[in-house]
Amino acid sequence: MEAVVLRYGHRMVRDERVTTHCCLVSRALGAKKIILCGEQDQTPIKAVEEVSKRWGAGFQAEMSGSWEKELTEHKKNNFKAVHLTMYGQPIEKKIKQIRKHKKIIVIIGSQKVERKVYELADYNIAVTNQPHSEIAALAIFLHEALKGKKTKFANPELKITPSLRGKNVKKKTRATG
Amino acid sequence: MEAVVLRYGHRMVRDERVTTHCCLVSRALGAKKIILCGEQDQTPIKAVEEVSKRWGAGFQAEMSGSWEKELTEHKKNNFKAVHLTMYGQPIEKKIKQIRKHKKIIVIIGSQKVERKVYELADYNIAVTNQPHSEIAALAIFLHEALKGKKTKFANPELKITPSLRGKNVKKKTRATG
Repeated sequence: MEAVVLRYGHRMVRDERVTTHCCLVSRALGAKKIILCGEQDQTPIKAVEEVSKRWGAGFQAEMSGSWEKELTEHKKNNFKAVHLTMYGQPIEKKIKQIRKHKKIIVIIGSQKVERKVYELADYNIAVTNQPHSEIAALAIFLHEALKGKKTKFANPELKITPSLRGKNVKKKTRATG
Repeated sequence: MEAVVLRYGHRMVRDERVTTHCCLVSRALGAKKIILCGEQDQTPIKAVEEVSKRWGAGFQAEMSGSWEKELTEHKKNNFKAVHLTMYGQPIEKKIKQIRKHKKIIVIIGSQKVERKVYELADYNIAVTNQPHSEIAALAIFLHEALKGKKTKFANPELKITPSLRGKNVKKKTRATG
């Protein structure tokens, strides 16, 4: 399954860190791309590009001026739209059905999400019906939807070998010529 | 299983939102309590108390002056310590073993975590070995560790009925005397 994440709403300074977490989670948990809609701000994009340079390439982050354009275009290209919201249906009831789709676009909000998002979405899904965090919802959703799929990132400078205690990181020296 | 979360490090203003997300995720995903260690700041605690007032009671958030004291005391009281870190062992290899414990304390970092945390932890666990987010790590870990357990919160003012599209929230009017 191919997953793209659409971040609905981003405010400069105030949302910088949370949006950056959304980008890193999308990358680490197997999405191909994140599209940020809201105030034009390169900060989170630069942060994830820096991570890709060190930890491996293959993930895209970009800004867009219109969430609605992105959503309708992706739907035209056979993406199913999954909106993560605490008001939606329980993930455990719908995840098997969602896993069958080849392409999904996952919408996560920041500030209040307008009604149209609920209407355009093919699924409105709740990870829990208690207030929590769009980062948490995204993480659990991708973990469940792409279960077992580990992304291989291209040409990493750094690589972790899991360890019982402490840190085991290998650094590749790049060919420069 | 009883789960307590220990947030290692909190900086005023800068970490406010991320720490608040950690609190809300702990509450929503079944932990009993979060202990915040770092700069003394009531903001995230007030935020989660506000949520508990509206969405139901039963979760505790508190500050502590020493992560080490908290960790060693919990260990003495038969809590197993699980430190979430991208350098640790894959969650899928260890989760079955962890689920057998009756009480766990889950440590999540903010800024760089000192070596002693890795050493005091019974488990160092990675949700992924790619940089991501402590909120995401906490969410996936609690989701996996407490699988199936839904917390019932006491005396909520608001309650969601899951819906296909839109929002369905019921508000209880409280008895006043």
